[in-house]
Amino acid sequence: MPTIDLNCDMGESFGAYKIGDDAAMMDIITTANIACGFHAGDPSVMRDTIVSARENGVAIGAHPSFMDLYGFGRRRIYGERPEDVEAQIIYQIAAIQGMATTLGWPITHVKTHGSLGNIAAEDETLASVCVKAIKAVDPSLVFITLPYSQTMLAAEEAGLAVACEVYADRRYLENGMLAPRQMEGAVIHDLSASVDQVLSMVCDNRIPTISGSHLSVNAATVCIHGDTPGAPATARALRDTLSEAGVTIAPFTKPKM
Amino acid sequence: MPTIDLNCDMGESFGAYKIGDDAAMMDIITTANIACGFHAGDPSVMRDTIVSARENGVAIGAHPSFMDLYGFGRRRIYGERPEDVEAQIIYQIAAIQGMATTLGWPITHVKTHGSLGNIAAEDETLASVCVKAIKAVDPSLVFITLPYSQTMLAAEEAGLAVACEVYADRRYLENGMLAPRQMEGAVIHDLSASVDQVLSMVCDNRIPTISGSHLSVNAATVCIHGDTPGAPATARALRDTLSEAGVTIAPFTKPKM
Amino acid sequence: MPTIDLNCDMGESFGAYKIGDDAAMMDIITTANIACGFHAGDPSVMRDTIVSARENGVAIGAHPSFMDLYGFGRRRIYGERPEDVEAQIIYQIAAIQGMATTLGWPITHVKTHGSLGNIAAEDETLASVCVKAIKAVDPSLVFITLPYSQTMLAAEEAGLAVACEVYADRRYLENGMLAPRQMEGAVIHDLSASVDQVLSMVCDNRIPTISGSHLSVNAATVCIHGDTPGAPATARALRDTLSEAGVTIAPFTKPKM
Amino acid sequence: MPTIDLNCDMGESFGAYKIGDDAAMMDIITTANIACGFHAGDPSVMRDTIVSARENGVAIGAHPSFMDLYGFGRRRIYGERPEDVEAQIIYQIAAIQGMATTLGWPITHVKTHGSLGNIAAEDETLASVCVKAIKAVDPSLVFITLPYSQTMLAAEEAGLAVACEVYADRRYLENGMLAPRQMEGAVIHDLSASVDQVLSMVCDNRIPTISGSHLSVNAATVCIHGDTPGAPATARALRDTLSEAGVTIAPFTKPKM
Repeated sequence: MPTIDLNCDMGESFGAYKIGDDAAMMDIITTANIACGFHAGDPSVMRDTIVSARENGVAIGAHPSFMDLYGFGRRRIYGERPEDVEAQIIYQIAAIQGMATTLGWPITHVKTHGSLGNIAAEDETLASVCVKAIKAVDPSLVFITLPYSQTMLAAEEAGLAVACEVYADRRYLENGMLAPRQMEGAVIHDLSASVDQVLSMVCDNRIPTISGSHLSVNAATVCIHGDTPGAPATARALRDTLSEAGVTIAPFTKPKM
Repeated sequence: MPTIDLNCDMGESFGAYKIGDDAAMMDIITTANIACGFHAGDPSVMRDTIVSARENGVAIGAHPSFMDLYGFGRRRIYGERPEDVEAQIIYQIAAIQGMATTLGWPITHVKTHGSLGNIAAEDETLASVCVKAIKAVDPSLVFITLPYSQTMLAAEEAGLAVACEVYADRRYLENGMLAPRQMEGAVIHDLSASVDQVLSMVCDNRIPTISGSHLSVNAATVCIHGDTPGAPATARALRDTLSEAGVTIAPFTKPKM
Repeated sequence: MPTIDLNCDMGESFGAYKIGDDAAMMDIITTANIACGFHAGDPSVMRDTIVSARENGVAIGAHPSFMDLYGFGRRRIYGERPEDVEAQIIYQIAAIQGMATTLGWPITHVKTHGSLGNIAAEDETLASVCVKAIKAVDPSLVFITLPYSQTMLAAEEAGLAVACEVYADRRYLENGMLAPRQMEGAVIHDLSASVDQVLSMVCDNRIPTISGSHLSVNAATVCIHGDTPGAPATARALRDTLSEAGVTIAPFTKPKM
Repeated sequence: MPTIDLNCDMGESFGAYKIGDDAAMMDIITTANIACGFHAGDPSVMRDTIVSARENGVAIGAHPSFMDLYGFGRRRIYGERPEDVEAQIIYQIAAIQGMATTLGWPITHVKTHGSLGNIAAEDETLASVCVKAIKAVDPSLVFITLPYSQTMLAAEEAGLAVACEVYADRRYLENGMLAPRQMEGAVIHDLSASVDQVLSMVCDNRIPTISGSHLSVNAATVCIHGDTPGAPATARALRDTLSEAGVTIAPFTKPKM
């Protein structure tokens, strides 16, 4: 029976600032990537998000970023030494790992955020930095990576478990990359088309590409967006439709307790 | 045979900014309190400081602070909810604990920084917050606290091990508090007077007060300053003179490896 | 004919974070206090807010704060040298003054934010610091201050024009201070009671106190909240009811162009 | 009689952190580029630096940067909208312009810092953003730019006055760019060779390139480094030797008072 995880970035509020309807999303997703304070999140937000995930049985992980609160981790930042980025990732994973353990709901994975993730997906050096950082803190953590990415390659070479992440609402190029948003047809706005794409990836292990060909994939988790208006409703519809199609929705990791 | 530890705040550089002669101090002290990124320090500085401490056999601990890089943790900050300060302390301890474990030189203590430490020493609620945070992360961590402080009381009530910290270069009031710097005679500028005070505290378990009386004390560690010009020379002279007087200089904690 | 201004804190978004429904409020208020980047706001938010105010004919001013993004300027911060707080206020006023002039809609007033304002209202030294900073940048700026506050006193002594700010939804103590929120009856939830209080202050120059007495007041502006759900509707109702009661709603300053 | 200016980045301390020997440099240079709080500097440091420049008759200017305190403005940051970078530059220039005017020593120029300057020198869009921002605040400000850069082109096209900046201790490529530091011979370590290069540029309007050819140049100012050990002595030697060779050392702008 096909199984898939639904992951979402969570805990991205900061101080007086609130982003996303985390309470609503927590009821829908199965895995939460929690911001660690570098692009978003603060210790109180992290604590509240971990507790909420625990209460909902949602698996959690670190969501490390470049140090960039102003840019929400979306500015593309170059020029740091690899060992410094590695230290930043270790710091963030360690901070949330310790806090989560304290709260009785340990982290089980890592997903890189924003530009850190985007650049690492294409850059061998940065991909390797991410993998080294995760392994240094806890080699049993699972790394959420994109198919056909440098990060997936680096993780597999290093013997780090990966969870392959796919998108329900984005088309793919023939090389396995996401079609750029500005390309016509790149974004899927129709629920049934999204569901069809996910079913292809989950049941048939095939990514349909924008040109009509297929790529093989071993999808473990679908990326769900939580910070747009209407996000919970869209996510709920996707989840329900997948369930009705016979797909089991469950975390790709087991909680460590 | 009397034994004492020498502790110093370390790893307080940030990005392009350097503070203190950490390399020189590492050769003199036995315990380093390492900044965790909230008032000073960044992941790269933390890594380098942990590695240097490990190479010098210096015991290390977390040095958490209010979130206040601009004020170097010295601004007195009020108005946060206790549970939020608790989360901040947990975050900082967890971050350095994880990083230090990764580097093979785990932390063994916590010392609060600047205004967080100063306010907690006098404020029962904040003292309790510090103790709760430390216990939550790791109840085997030792808490460096001032004698006759709310933090020491809170730690003892909670069964958290404390290391009582004394000053070599500051006189004490009759209530066990440090005489304010602006009070005449509050600061000891003479090495032999500093050594005499430490010997009294370490060998006779007595704090001489500024008014001539004595308070009992179970001193575990002397606070050494590292960020003034000439700090290493002063610290070296204190250490050597104490050694010549028959005092063993050693960390108050054993490294966990 | 009685006239009153409605002022609201605006431009408090930051990077990816949005706070308040500024677009809706701009249509209701007559004066905007714009965050300058220390507790909230960033250069892009400031630019957009200035442009929106200009398009709506809303007078604008600087809304300086302690340096405290994490605490949104609400943490009570002590221990800075007065000359350093003065420099911070000058910096913030200058930044927005220059930007606003560039955009053809110069600032005409200053209102201190959060804890900076609260502490200055009661602390003679900090009140004087605020007044000195404003005069240093531009002595023609008007300072929004609370009645019976140290800031109003300091401004009047220094010959700085003040705009006395009153609240529609808060009761007053006999000493002219706002009744603390936790006191029973401190917050006015009823629109007609709010309007009555404002009419008393605007038409009769009298603040009704919580104990039934009255204080004299020369009210220039009413503080309107913009960051709660329903804020625009509440503000609109207050404005409309005051207008119907014959009060002219207009900025207390004339734009400099 | 040939005249040249010596400019140096100043006021790059932050809070408790000190960088550079500004006091010593102020006695040597003729123009100071003052950090505005985005990569370094804070309002108190800015005030002290402006006052020190005024007392030494040193011309001052804004030294705006990307928002990047952690990276000291040296991280290469991409992905921001041009209008947002423009707003950031306007904010920084306005902040120091207002503060400097308050202190009776107005700014007369702008020099972009670190990666902002480096990227803008090669990127037409960012170069144009810098020029637009400067003109928006004050079209009489002079823009320090590198020869053969996009920034110089953009300024000249927009009618903004430029001061062409040359290096005493770096060799040039045939296209007018600085030879990369890792290239053999790229850095000039010898004082007399540095002086020869400056004399060629100042007296003969020729940049000697690393391959032996020459480029024409209208040099207005030499970039002096202030943040390395021995920087003041090196700068003093360069200044004295240029003076002895008959070059007048003077600011390229006249103070506005």
